Formats: sequence, C-alpha cells, structure tokens
Amino acid sequence: MMAQPIAVAIHGGAGNMTPENLPSEKAKQIEAYLRDVVEEAHRLLSEGRLALEVVEIAVRRLEDAGWFDAGIGSYLNERGFIEMDASIMDGKTRRTGAVAAVRGVRNPITLARLVMERTSHVFIVGEGADSLARIWALPPLRNEVPTISPGVVTQGTVGAVALDKYGNLAAATSTGGIAGKKVSRVGDSPIIGAGTYAENGVIALSATGYGEYFIRSVLTYDIAARIRYAKMTPAAAIQSAFKERLESIGGTGGVIAVSPQGEVFFHFNTSGMYRAGKDSAGRLTVGIYK
Amino acid sequence: MMAQPIAVAIHGGAGNMTPENLPSEKAKQIEAYLRDVVEEAHRLLSEGRLALEVVEIAVRRLEDAGWFDAGIGSYLNERGFIEMDASIMDGKTRRTGAVAAVRGVRNPITLARLVMERTSHVFIVGEGADSLARIWALPPLRNEVPTISPGVVTQGTVGAVALDKYGNLAAATSTGGIAGKKVSRVGDSPIIGAGTYAENGVIALSATGYGEYFIRSVLTYDIAARIRYAKMTPAAAIQSAFKERLESIGGTGGVIAVSPQGEVFFHFNTSGMYRAGKDSAGRLTVGIYK
Repeated sequence: MMAQPIAVAIHGGAGNMTPENLPSEKAKQIEAYLRDVVEEAHRLLSEGRLALEVVEIAVRRLEDAGWFDAGIGSYLNERGFIEMDASIMDGKTRRTGAVAAVRGVRNPITLARLVMERTSHVFIVGEGADSLARIWALPPLRNEVPTISPGVVTQGTVGAVALDKYGNLAAATSTGGIAGKKVSRVGDSPIIGAGTYAENGVIALSATGYGEYFIRSVLTYDIAARIRYAKMTPAAAIQSAFKERLESIGGTGGVIAVSPQGEVFFHFNTSGMYRAGKDSAGRLTVGIYK
Repeated sequence: MMAQPIAVAIHGGAGNMTPENLPSEKAKQIEAYLRDVVEEAHRLLSEGRLALEVVEIAVRRLEDAGWFDAGIGSYLNERGFIEMDASIMDGKTRRTGAVAAVRGVRNPITLARLVMERTSHVFIVGEGADSLARIWALPPLRNEVPTISPGVVTQGTVGAVALDKYGNLAAATSTGGIAGKKVSRVGDSPIIGAGTYAENGVIALSATGYGEYFIRSVLTYDIAARIRYAKMTPAAAIQSAFKERLESIGGTGGVIAVSPQGEVFFHFNTSGMYRAGKDSAGRLTVGIYK
C-alpha cells in the first residue's frame, strides 16, 4: 500500500526584512524556531494527528514565540494595547471558527477553535470573545514570557496549513494586526476566504500582509476558485490571484499553501516572509528572504 | 445614443413567512414599503446618482423600517440587547467598509460607509466602531420610532444592490443577526465575499439567511467566481452555488443580485424572502413568498 502524503507549511509574516536590517544572529534564531515548529508539526502528522489539530498546535507555538505579530508579540493599537484576530478552518467539513479584536487571551487560535467546537456560531468578536475565553478558562495574555526575545520589533501575522494522512486539509491564521491600528480594527486573518481557507481536494491557504487589501480581494477563496473553476494549478492560481486581484489595487503580502497532493507553496511580493515547510517528499524548506 | 442600463434590487430577509403566518394586511404594508424604497432608488439612479450612494440610501430606509432584522428592528442577543453588522462595497474600486457588533448607532450601513471613506481600514467592530459613530456624530439607535410598526416580530437581514448609469455596481447589507445570539457574534453580512460582494463587470450581491453557513461557503464571492472563472450566467452561478456550496452543508437563506447588463435576480430556499427590484427594462418586481 502506498503511503498517504502528508505536508505542512507555516509562516511568521511577510514584511520588509532584508539581510541588511535583520541581524544575522536573530535571523538564525528565528529560522531555528520555524524549523522546530514545522518538524514537530510534520512528526505529529506522521503519527496520524489530524491536520486541524496540527495547524492549531503550530500556530500556538508561533503565537507564543514573541517575535511575530501574534499572541504575546502582537503590535499595539492606537491606544497602546493588544487586540488580536484569528481563524481556523477544517477542510473536510468546511467548519470554521474565528475571533477578532480579542484582548485577554494568550492563544487566540485556540479560542477560535473552541468557537467552532463549542458554539453554534463561527465568528465572535471583542467583549463576547474575551468573555468566552474567561468562561472556558483559557490562559490569559498577560504575564507571558516570549519564547524568543521580549521587546524586539515584531514582524507579521502567523499561520499554518497542513495535509494529514487521511487526506484532510486545514488552515489557521493569527495576528495582532497593524501597528497603531484603530481600536477594534479587524484585518483579513479572521475572515474565511480572505486570510484563511481550506477545502479538501482543493487547497489550504493562510495569508499575511496588509489585511485591508486581502479582504477586498477575497484572496484565499479567489485562489481556491481559480483551482476549482478555472482548473489552474495551485502555483498558477496563487500567482495570478496576486497579480490580478491584490497587486492591481496595491496590496502587499504573502501566502502559504498545501495542496491535496502534499505540495507546499510559498508566495510573497515583499522583500521577505518568515516561512518553513515540509512536503510529501519530506523536503524541508526554511527561509526568510526572497 | 442608447440609454445606459440602470437597475436595483432590495431584500428584507429570507425566512419562514407564508400566507398563513403573515397577516395579509401586514404583508400589503411591507410590500408597499419595499415598492416605495425600490422606486425611490430607481429614481435616484435615473437622476445619475452613484450605485454606492443608492444602496446606502435604500438600506438606511430598510434599517429604519422597524419590521426587518436591522437597525431599530434588530433581534436581541442572549443578553437582551441589539448588536448589528453591516457592510458596503463599491464595485468600481473594490473599496469596502464594514462594521460588526455595534450597539449604539441608528444606521450601521452609514457607519460602514464612513469606515470606508474616512479611515485606512475596512472593518471595525464593537467598541471601536461605536466610538467612531459617536466621534462622527451619527444618530444613536435609541429613541427611534420604527417607520412601519413597533413591537412586531422582525424577520431578516436587509440589503440592496444597484447598477448606476456609469456602469458601476454596488452592494450593501445590514443585520441585527440571529435572535438570542451570543454577545458579539458576527454573521455573514459584514463579511466581504460572504454576505456582500460587488465588482464592476461581474455582479453585485447581497445575501440573507443563516450567516454561519454563508461564511463557510464564501457564498457571494463563490457566485462571482463561477461567473468569472466558470463562465456561468448569473442565474446558473447563483443556483449552483446554493446547491453545491450552501445546501450541501445545510444552509438556508437567499440572495439578490444585479448584473452589469441590469438584470435583477432573486433566489432563496426558504418559504419567503421580502424583496423588490426594478431592472433595466423598467420591470418592477415586489414579492414575499415563493
């Protein structure tokens, strides 16, 4: 019997990082962290864990890192406090959970998953979402110690996509949004079809970048639709969606994807994107710059 | 010179209304209101007003009606107060504005439009959105008198789509969400690509129904994608999207659409949808039941 393919990819945000502005010591540290997260995710998939579980676990680790614009590393809004957005999608059932503008929870991705599992809703924001986090006794955001480095400049949204050995795709995205954003501004990360999308047999996607443009482009679902309806390859769908939908209105950012065959894709139009992946052939990719 | 086509359609929500459970006197009153809103919208379009302005004006009147689940007529959440969602999209530029879980504003659709016009963001929720409504001195929700009838059972989300004489499409949707919903639950109405979508040359759409299923289906953008990428007619795209995307996971509701040629479409899988439209040939449609 042929082994079922598994694959995983993660990102820590697209941005303007270059070898000139990011100290090489720091870059090495981040790459090691990304590699560790993706290797653990791949191992869990090989052990038979569901894609949905694995993307949540991977995103939790990225939220906890402190380096990325998610969880404890989130940018502050215009009034100086953190508000976070996250979503998760199960490609098998198209069930989803999302939260936005939450303030008090350490791992918004877990809150998003519990919205999916424990309520009849899919998207809960602000006070209502923070209230559920307290009711469900999720660890609070405060008093956390970033894993990598406290006080460093954060960089971008985090996300994960995976294919498990049962053929299920899943995607998860989490962010602190734009630095200095208005209170309770929501970006693309919690929007199904904009920042996150997964559907078995089609594609799993997580985006990063200037969220307003990804919302206006319905970017991740546009990529899925090009694959389904225009019969494009994932690579062609991603490239043409960026060009025709996102860049045509001035949008910048990136996306990661895993196909039903276990291919891994990275695409970004910025100078860098923190990323790592391991495809169905076991090929490991870790990178920051173009 | 041939006249440029104009068209408009509005809805007051899909639901379980039937000639048996909706008193005929009330039905006549609602139909008269819908006719009046759509006739005014059509007149404004004929005078050269932009589709974007007209959909906002139409939705404001539906929010003010008191009969529909939007504005003053909104359902109450689990704690007994109103929280509203709305979005608007300009098909010419793909600019959008959206708000969710707002409590204190009479016309969420106008707040959504101002988010689009006056901020660098496209989606602001909860406290942040209510704060902007106060800063911009928008009329508050309280102390309003419903236009049609206070105290009646409300029925559904409202929306409008239009084609102006310059070839621009626009869409707008506004809702009070599901009765008894959790605090700050967000449905599909403020989600671009789920409850609302407009793109010149493609289609303008506004949806109504059980929002969770529309989010999971990315329903309005799926319809647009079928038109763009699968080269379907709008009618075929709407029918197949409902069947393959929404009904396959148990979703119920409806959608209204206007095409770039000025055709008007209504589709719903419930027993009724409050609706009215006037197409490029000047044909008026007003209806409630199948």
